[in-house]
Amino acid sequence: MKKIVRLALAQINCIVGDLEGNEVKILNYINEGKKNDADIVVFPEMAVTGYPPEDLLHKPKFIKDNTVILNRIADSCAGIIAIIGFAYREGAAVSENSIDDKNAALYNSAAIISGGKVMKVYSKVILPNYGVFDEKRYFTEGNCCDVFSFDDVVFGVNICEDIWHPDGPTKVQASLGRAGLIISINASPFHVGKHLLREKIVAKRAVENGVTIAYANMVGGQDELVFDGGSMIMGSRGEMFARADCFKETMLVADVEMNSKAVQKSVSVGNAFYVGTKEVSHELCLLDGKLKYKKNSVARFIAPCLEPLEEIYKALVSGTCDYVKKSGFNKVIIGLSGGIDSALVAAVATDALGSENVMGVALPSRYSSKGSVDDARALAENLNIHFDVIFIEEAFKSFLDLLDPLFEGYEPDVTEENLQARIRCNILMALSNKYGRMLLTTGNKSELSVGYTTLYGDMAGGFCVLKDVPKTLVYKLSNYVNDAAGSKRIPLNTITKPPSAELRPYQTDQDSLPPYDILDNILQMYIEEELSFSEIVSSGFDEAVVGKVIRMVDCNEYKRRQAAPGIKITPKAFGRDRRMPLVNLYRGLRHNG
Amino acid sequence: MKKIVRLALAQINCIVGDLEGNEVKILNYINEGKKNDADIVVFPEMAVTGYPPEDLLHKPKFIKDNTVILNRIADSCAGIIAIIGFAYREGAAVSENSIDDKNAALYNSAAIISGGKVMKVYSKVILPNYGVFDEKRYFTEGNCCDVFSFDDVVFGVNICEDIWHPDGPTKVQASLGRAGLIISINASPFHVGKHLLREKIVAKRAVENGVTIAYANMVGGQDELVFDGGSMIMGSRGEMFARADCFKETMLVADVEMNSKAVQKSVSVGNAFYVGTKEVSHELCLLDGKLKYKKNSVARFIAPCLEPLEEIYKALVSGTCDYVKKSGFNKVIIGLSGGIDSALVAAVATDALGSENVMGVALPSRYSSKGSVDDARALAENLNIHFDVIFIEEAFKSFLDLLDPLFEGYEPDVTEENLQARIRCNILMALSNKYGRMLLTTGNKSELSVGYTTLYGDMAGGFCVLKDVPKTLVYKLSNYVNDAAGSKRIPLNTITKPPSAELRPYQTDQDSLPPYDILDNILQMYIEEELSFSEIVSSGFDEAVVGKVIRMVDCNEYKRRQAAPGIKITPKAFGRDRRMPLVNLYRGLRHNG
Repeated sequence: MKKIVRLALAQINCIVGDLEGNEVKILNYINEGKKNDADIVVFPEMAVTGYPPEDLLHKPKFIKDNTVILNRIADSCAGIIAIIGFAYREGAAVSENSIDDKNAALYNSAAIISGGKVMKVYSKVILPNYGVFDEKRYFTEGNCCDVFSFDDVVFGVNICEDIWHPDGPTKVQASLGRAGLIISINASPFHVGKHLLREKIVAKRAVENGVTIAYANMVGGQDELVFDGGSMIMGSRGEMFARADCFKETMLVADVEMNSKAVQKSVSVGNAFYVGTKEVSHELCLLDGKLKYKKNSVARFIAPCLEPLEEIYKALVSGTCDYVKKSGFNKVIIGLSGGIDSALVAAVATDALGSENVMGVALPSRYSSKGSVDDARALAENLNIHFDVIFIEEAFKSFLDLLDPLFEGYEPDVTEENLQARIRCNILMALSNKYGRMLLTTGNKSELSVGYTTLYGDMAGGFCVLKDVPKTLVYKLSNYVNDAAGSKRIPLNTITKPPSAELRPYQTDQDSLPPYDILDNILQMYIEEELSFSEIVSSGFDEAVVGKVIRMVDCNEYKRRQAAPGIKITPKAFGRDRRMPLVNLYRGLRHNG
Repeated sequence: MKKIVRLALAQINCIVGDLEGNEVKILNYINEGKKNDADIVVFPEMAVTGYPPEDLLHKPKFIKDNTVILNRIADSCAGIIAIIGFAYREGAAVSENSIDDKNAALYNSAAIISGGKVMKVYSKVILPNYGVFDEKRYFTEGNCCDVFSFDDVVFGVNICEDIWHPDGPTKVQASLGRAGLIISINASPFHVGKHLLREKIVAKRAVENGVTIAYANMVGGQDELVFDGGSMIMGSRGEMFARADCFKETMLVADVEMNSKAVQKSVSVGNAFYVGTKEVSHELCLLDGKLKYKKNSVARFIAPCLEPLEEIYKALVSGTCDYVKKSGFNKVIIGLSGGIDSALVAAVATDALGSENVMGVALPSRYSSKGSVDDARALAENLNIHFDVIFIEEAFKSFLDLLDPLFEGYEPDVTEENLQARIRCNILMALSNKYGRMLLTTGNKSELSVGYTTLYGDMAGGFCVLKDVPKTLVYKLSNYVNDAAGSKRIPLNTITKPPSAELRPYQTDQDSLPPYDILDNILQMYIEEELSFSEIVSSGFDEAVVGKVIRMVDCNEYKRRQAAPGIKITPKAFGRDRRMPLVNLYRGLRHNG
């Protein structure tokens, strides 16, 4: 017998900690689901709390409050099944406002709500504790792979990491549980190419187990992460059945035809078996939904895939918009040097917040070329943003005068360069404070990797848009910005002139650094691939250059520790993703390749 | 039959990543052990790599190099048994320089070296993944509770967290393994009172299992952690048999009389049983040591316990000394405001590095009282440190002039206060850059909690000595410094005058903050105890004050994210210990207490 199930995947942008805001949003989409005659409406992992809530999970009242909200939401779920991610304290009654034991186990869970009640809770079995994830810090692993029956359709729920493992819950639910549909709820963060990887994994899992998979992902930025959405429904032959847009809050509604398997209702079909090395059990739970036969199936919608540069740019825009707005700001200020990094940041900010909310300030010193201010002004005109020029010479001179007696006998060095960068920081932060505009900082990943940047100088700011964008990618994205607009938003001269910090006469970046294409290749191998000195050299790079780059990366961890947050776009970003000690004398043993 | 075993616990100060430096140190203490006729010499957890090596553990070559070093050390161990902490890659031959599989499981392990060879490896069973610890990010849990026989003395090895759990490896090793001696190797970080807690736990474990426990801890600072040593030998009735000094690299040598249990040599005495929820096995391994009967037992040494203020002060001195020196500096610079925070930091720095390596600079503005510079100068004279005065008025005026056109129509506010703090940052960092002196920043935990501090201003610096020291404790420690010296190192006026940032006329801290004793109490409840607004209010604090303090703590996470590292002295420090989201709109549900 064939059944049609109408699924609504609510790909929402939650805010961490904003329980009541998330509640309102979830209720809106439940209503949308009802209006669209959906049978099941699905929300992302941890939709009630936002993800990742980090150490908020250590606050007993936070867990209690999230349970209260979940129950309030359940009250509004008459006539629809809802699957909603939340934090579940073992023993906490989810159908009433009980006082829970703050020492009981905590789970990363999904509430299965039916008939206006939380009928069951599924808890994530496989907890990620690598990269940016710290889930074993907070959660106990779930050990039960329940399936649920909706009329004759049997489905299982998975949470994020669960679906990535061939021996995970899906296998149990599909085989012993005889589920034909797996509903996977996620808060899976973006990096370039991640969406394609996800589709591959979901297709593989669907085919292996002969199940349809409904994959609902979160969308929007949270601190250094961007969730890219791309929710989807994958058929049991690995065919894409429906896909939502990436980087957009939306609800994907689709009718799925299910071959209902003959399930012995109300009878437990298994006892105990293994997922990986863990003992898990499953049981069958019947929900009280009544299957409504649909006359007209909704149209399939398959959003197009994004090209890499497009998805990265959208991630930067989405991450910047959400960090600024969720932090309570709507306006930003940016120091415009006339260079390519600040130009790209200004373009991102304009697309994220609107040109009326972006202010650019050029802060030329005695070493700035006239061209730099012109380029900055041209950019501001192209982007239609507010623009000011403040000459820092007077301030610079006053510092040199103050310091003159103490610098006697010392040669000029990087100190005088840093002075200028820190004067700019002081002026930009003063404008930020006075105007209530968040300062966006403009450094890129290449600079931050080798420490070619001034702490409390150009590193200062509330958010570092390009923190995970290597310099060579900054160029590609700048060209993408111009190509996409069909016009020169970023002035050509900014893109073509040799990069320079302009902190001493005739300076260019390449006085201190290898050419950026070489530098970025070495950085990729050393930081992302964890290759050693010898391995990098043997792939064709100069020994002295590789040695210098590695030394610079290792010695500048202290700067990165005090860096502003920024958007993760690569598989390994600085920040939570790469946790290096500050004191670290490891330089590699010589004799051992 | 009774046997006497001479144990040497090497309480050493390792440096993370400095494999060759740690090797030299370990070899020195192995020689010391031999000279002292020790049977077994014991080193801390991860002695080869330093602890915590964090994401260095993701570098395949780092793991390989640490194995090479371990094997080189083993070569020098003829005639003595050595227990040494290292990172063990499953399948990596530890007795030869093999190429290992970088995807194989990694363990936090102890090498049991005998006859110049790594005879066995014990791997930590219970991995901490809370507080500052991320061990599940790196390591697989050990599943084998071996015991080892040295002549007729049977001993087991534990690693740090293992000993904290009543159902941990000790229980298995003592019961089924019939071990009479447990050697526990540790990298257990300090917080106030931690040593007493450790002694209680170790005594409990000894009594429960009828074993002698030899507990070797690391010593010295690593980034935000200080390891306090306090290695000890606890008898099976829970009596302290020997204890090393805290905060001091040393070797504790003691003869321990063992009632050797009758052990069937070479026979496995058990198959598989459980530690906690994990399946573990154990086997008996005979080492080739030959027991030397001792004529003269070494004297028992039981170092005295430290009082709380003394141990905190020593932790600050030790943490500062090691962070500065291990980072490659030996000199520091400190901005001296005449206030108590910078005075205490200067005292700590002087005790850590010597007065000849500390430079104090007073940076008075138009709002500084004459008394402030006098107090700073008096402090510098008392501590015998270099002292300079730089008036920041000219720089301040030049910024006000530059900004004048942009500030038109705006009232003076916190912007002008921050300007001054950031001018001081720029001058201090310029001196730091020019002289090669690390800038120590002087903020305390109370300020940092509520954000009463300027980002890129007084927050700037390489190390924040008082980062985890609440203001009320700053007072106690300052009095302790004077009492311990029997003289007024910190000027009385600095201790008694009302605290002020002196950034506007007649300002005192209490214009913006509740009195510090109230503030610190609320902070302790909110941050360390994770109590909610209502819970704090119901313990007797004013609603409006509690609400304001919580709001300030929540809204200033962004400042703390860019703060300098500093020494953990409480059970919950800022940094790795408390991981709060930046975007966080949680304010607590009203109706739900």
